[in-house]
Formats: sequence, C-alpha cells, structure tokens
Amino acid sequence: SNSKKILILAGDGIGPEVMGEVKRTLGWFEKRRGSGFETEDGLVGGCSFDKHGVPLTDETMQKAIDADAVLLGAVGGPKWDNLPFKDKPERGLLRLRKDMELFANLRPALVFDALAEASSLKTELVKGLDIMIVRELTGGVYFGSPRGIETLPNGERRGINTQVYTTSEIQRVARVAFELARKRGNKLCSVEKANVMESGVLWREEVQKLGDTEYKDVQLSHMYADNCAMQLVRQPKQFDVIVTDNLFGDLLSDCAAMLTGSLGMLPSASLGAADKGGKRKALYEPVHGSAPDIAGQGKANPLACLLSLSMMLRYSFDQGEDADLLEKAANNVVAKGFRTGDIMAPGCTLVGTKEMGDEILKEL
Amino acid sequence: SNSKKILILAGDGIGPEVMGEVKRTLGWFEKRRGSGFETEDGLVGGCSFDKHGVPLTDETMQKAIDADAVLLGAVGGPKWDNLPFKDKPERGLLRLRKDMELFANLRPALVFDALAEASSLKTELVKGLDIMIVRELTGGVYFGSPRGIETLPNGERRGINTQVYTTSEIQRVARVAFELARKRGNKLCSVEKANVMESGVLWREEVQKLGDTEYKDVQLSHMYADNCAMQLVRQPKQFDVIVTDNLFGDLLSDCAAMLTGSLGMLPSASLGAADKGGKRKALYEPVHGSAPDIAGQGKANPLACLLSLSMMLRYSFDQGEDADLLEKAANNVVAKGFRTGDIMAPGCTLVGTKEMGDEILKEL
Ligand SMILES: CC(C)[C@H](C(=O)O)[C@@H](O)C(=O)O
Ligand SMILES: CC(C)[C@H](C(=O)O)[C@@H](O)C(=O)O
Repeated sequence: SNSKKILILAGDGIGPEVMGEVKRTLGWFEKRRGSGFETEDGLVGGCSFDKHGVPLTDETMQKAIDADAVLLGAVGGPKWDNLPFKDKPERGLLRLRKDMELFANLRPALVFDALAEASSLKTELVKGLDIMIVRELTGGVYFGSPRGIETLPNGERRGINTQVYTTSEIQRVARVAFELARKRGNKLCSVEKANVMESGVLWREEVQKLGDTEYKDVQLSHMYADNCAMQLVRQPKQFDVIVTDNLFGDLLSDCAAMLTGSLGMLPSASLGAADKGGKRKALYEPVHGSAPDIAGQGKANPLACLLSLSMMLRYSFDQGEDADLLEKAANNVVAKGFRTGDIMAPGCTLVGTKEMGDEILKEL
Repeated sequence: SNSKKILILAGDGIGPEVMGEVKRTLGWFEKRRGSGFETEDGLVGGCSFDKHGVPLTDETMQKAIDADAVLLGAVGGPKWDNLPFKDKPERGLLRLRKDMELFANLRPALVFDALAEASSLKTELVKGLDIMIVRELTGGVYFGSPRGIETLPNGERRGINTQVYTTSEIQRVARVAFELARKRGNKLCSVEKANVMESGVLWREEVQKLGDTEYKDVQLSHMYADNCAMQLVRQPKQFDVIVTDNLFGDLLSDCAAMLTGSLGMLPSASLGAADKGGKRKALYEPVHGSAPDIAGQGKANPLACLLSLSMMLRYSFDQGEDADLLEKAANNVVAKGFRTGDIMAPGCTLVGTKEMGDEILKEL
C-alpha cells in the first residue's frame, strides 16, 4: 500500500493524553490533506512491563523497525522506580533507540515569541532563541561495555560503565549536524571534554577532519562540555547547531530546553541512517517526561507532542507544507493566549489538553 | 616550626595577577593578625611545561603533598591547546588532585546581594541563592582505565574511557556532603543517571544507605543529572547541598556557577581525607579559568582567588574569624560599588586587579 505506517507508542503518565490529541490531528491531515496514514498502537515503558513483564516486547520492537515512523509519548513514573535495572521503563526506550539504530537525536531549543517571558532567563537573552542540539544517541556510556556492578574480593562493590566511540560513529552524527547547520545559520559547535577524556580527543579530531574536508563552508568551533553548560546560561544565542555525545547531549539538551521556559512545547526527532531511497528510520517524541504528578487529569500540554508530529511530517514524509501548517497553528494558538498550566501567564486563557487540541484543529 | 606551609601555584593566564593580590592579603594577615605563614611558589600548567617540559614536576608534586595547603590560580590557554594529551596544562591540575587524593571538591554557588542583577536569570530566582556542590574529584571517568585511543583491525579508531566507582569512594565523598548539609540547610540532593548507568545505581544505593543509617536527620533526595541541569535553571533555590560524581560535577557546578552571574567571585576547595589529627590535605582555587583574553592586563577580578584564600583559612587553618573578616571585606567592597570589568554595572566604579586588592586591604 501507499499509506505510511506509523507506530504509536503513547507510553506512561501523560503520554496517552497528549497522544490522543496527536491522533485527532493526524485524522485531520488524513481527511483534509489526503495524507494516507496507517496507525497502530503499541506499548512501551511501565505500561508494557505491567502487561507483558518487559518494558518492550520483541513483537513491538519488530513493529517499530517495520514502521515508516514511530511516535512516542513518554515513559516512566514512580510506580516503576524500584524495578531492577533491566526492567525499568527507560530500558524500553533505550532498546528502541539502539535496535532502530537511531544515532542522531535532534533537539531544537526554540523560544516562541509569545512565551519568551516564561523563561527563567532575562527575556532579552532568550527572545528569538533557536538552537538545534544534535545528540549522538546509540553510543557512548549509554551502551558501552563492560558495564555492571561487581563485588570485589574485599567485599566492596564496584560500578562500571564504558564510554566508547568509534570514528564512524562520530562521523555519521557529525554529518547530520553539519548538514543541519548548512540549512540554518551555518555554525556548528562540537562539544566534548578533550582535555580530560581520550574519547573526547577522538571526537574532536574526527569532527575537525570533516570540517576541513567535506564541510569547509560551515563555521566550526569546539567547546568543552562544562564551558558549554555555562555558555548556554550566559549567552545562549551564541549557538546555532551543537553536536555532542550521548551523555553530554542528555544534560545539555535538557539545560537548553529549560532555557526556553516552555518544556511543554519542545519536540524531538531521533533519526537513523538513510537507506538507498533516502529514507531514514525515525522516532519522534516530546522532550518532556511522563509528568506523573498531573497524569490522567487532562491538564497536560499536547503541543510538544503535536510539534513532534510536525517534525515527523517534515523529516519522514517530506510534507514540509503540512509541517509548517501545524507549526503555525501551534504558534497562533499560543499567540492568541490559550495556555495549559505549564505555560500559563497572567491575562491568558487556561485550557486543558483536549481544549488545546480543539484550538489547534480550529486553527488548521 | 609552627608556621603554616602554603604552596602557591599561580599557574597560567590571569593566575599570577590574581595571586598577587592574594599574597598581599596574606601579608596583611601575617602582620595584623599574627598568622604565621610560610609560602613558597611553584609552577603548574603551561608555564611548567614551558620551563620543565611537563605540566607538573615530581618535585612540585612532592611539595604540594608536604604543604599544609595549596593555593592555585588557573591553568591552560590557547598557547598549549595543541599539546599532546599527556602534556596538556590540565594534566598538572589533575595530577595534583589525584596524588594529593583530593576526593571532595566543594564549589559554592553563592549570589552576592549587590550582584544579583548580574545573573542572566531573573533576579528573584537567584537573589539569596546559596548552593554548595560537592563534586567527587579523584574517581569516575577522569581517572578510570582502560582508557585511550586504539586502532581497530578495519582501520577505524576507537576512543575509550571508563567510568568506575567503588563503594568506599562513594561513601567518603557522600559523608563530606552529609556533614556539610548538617551545617547548612540540612538538605542533600544526590545526582546520577541511575536510570541509564550501573555506576549510578551503585552511587544511589550507597548514598541512600548512609542516609538511612548515619545521617537519618538529613533530608536526602535523588535526582537524575539531566533533570538537575534543568532544575538548576528553573528553580535553583530548591537546592541546598548537591553531591555528584566527577564528570556530572564538572558540568553542573559550572552551570550553577554561571547562575550567579559572577564567576569572578566564586572560590572552591578540594579536600582529602582527615588524618588522625583531623587535618586534611587541601587545595584552593577560583572556579574561573585562566582567561587568556585578558591576561596580563591588570583587569582580572581577584575576588574569587581571595575568597579561595578565605576558604583556606576556614577549612585548613581553623581561622574562621579571619575567613569571615575577608568575606565581609569582599562583600563590602562590592556593595560600595567597586567592580572589575566582569561584574561591572551602570553607576559602579570600574577598578583593576590591583585596585580591587587595595580596596580589600582598606576594608580589612
Ligand atoms: C529516559 C532516559 C533514559 C532518557 C535518556 O537519558 O536519554 C531521557 O532523559 C532523554 O533524554 O531522552
Ligand atoms: C581544567 C579541567 C581539567 C577541570 C576539570 O575538568 O575538572 C576544570 O574544568 C574544573 O572544573 O576544575
């Protein structure tokens, strides 16, 4: 068939609520824009553990691999906090990333004009902010071995993880970042701790090599990760595209996300290698977590998940026009003053998850 | 002799300038307060490499071990950026930490009332901020092996570092943090990525055990490092003491330092284990770096280095009163509107390194 297969993994906490609005919006695109989507639902995270005893079944894993795109809500919650390491909801997400080989995680940190005041930073420092963080997602300390906890002869225990990167792992994610930089401000900042870690030395060398050969036109700089954490707080607008490893990317992208003051607005895309037809495996998810404190109350902000849908339209299905349409709708709704609790401001109209979805549909 | 042996390692960049003011202030304490100090100068970092071909000589290393306290300025600069890994200025500092066994790095993130406006965060979010980050300093990925860069049979290269922590390494730094929490707000937040790394699982378990036994009175919580990076930006005042590993501590303490908006004001202490007499090996240094862009111009802010001296008086020599005196002097000078370039604000008086030192002496 010609229709696009989308696997929907709503996950835990507010995942199902926000995904509900995504489904309604998908429906609109089918009806009004004639997009052919074939959606299927699956379980990941705590909900999968509850039903199947594992955070992700082999069957769902296979469906994710076979899908044209995966949409994910969020995983985790206090209910599963004390599960053994291998059963934790996060393991489901990590397996998806690894087995789909989604090595490039794109995390825009974008400040919506109407929400600039919501940042904890002074408004002038963040107004118009538009950073793209490209985080390596299938390597580094997240997946390196040896790993584990061992008991030493003297009775002490020792916890071990391994940070490891090969040339080709660094190159492929750097290429994604260079390409994105070309389409944006043409500036790339590569981040590691080459002053302390040999894996960082290799990272820097390989990125520099690409900069010296294939991407001479892109303005490349290097920064230590601690300094990057500082500079994000000090003067975030100095950045265009940032490329960094899995662990630094985890911290720095969350830091950058928080600069925008509106976590509930931030989408992300995780991409694999392009096949011969130029198609990439892809998973789209909001940056926010499962927010167990407000789950099931219809209060959650669906916009991050809706903007993840927009990233899917753009990156997986080449529906740039539809993506623009949806982004504009989100912008307008917020500009008109409709706000969920997380981005509420004086003088605005407080709405719930479903009402926010309604407003988006109205805009469309 | 009864006098206290201090090894002064001014280092590179602005190190010598700011250390000059520290020496003058030390002189004042000798004369007016009858403190007996025996100081000696040594080289570390790029300046040591230039003179001796290594970033730290064995002789200086031994002097540091024998000293009652070490005062350090800063290391590094573009001149030495392309040295091989083992010759880098940073290796000198890392060797000092390792061979002196300075496992607990205390990094206060404190906002001076007069400087609250200098933060990039909204003033109400940081006014009165007083966080103490306790960073593990001799373990983790900084020192773990195997490490290095190897060439694989297929010609690719692979960079490796090892994150490793033992029970006792975690316990000793956690104890320092618990003790500090007791003297402050009695709240400790332990930070790792236990959802992704087994070394983080061990970290969390060991800290929790101490919380359940020896430190039941301290309010203990746990947080993932990415969330901590977010929370520092969102609502920094929620924290009292944070304890975390070497690498997370590197990023998070720099992020926290930048929240204060006045990096040029922040000291740090690195402490070893207490001997029978209760004495600890110790190194004190400002949080800021060597600032090569303004080095040699007499513009640098000496207050972070002076406040490091104050930490030395307090932690190494039990001269709490003298430490208070010096801190008050720094506070007053800033409150009176004297500012170096880094903290300059409209209506204040711009001063250089030496004038700032003069003002401190006047206050004393
Ligand atoms: C849930 C967790 C495993 C995950 C990570 O650490 O990568 C999350 O923090 C993220 O950034 O997507
Ligand atoms: C200079 C460098 C080796 C050092 C570190 O990474 O620990 C510095 O960033 C610090 O935080 O003291």
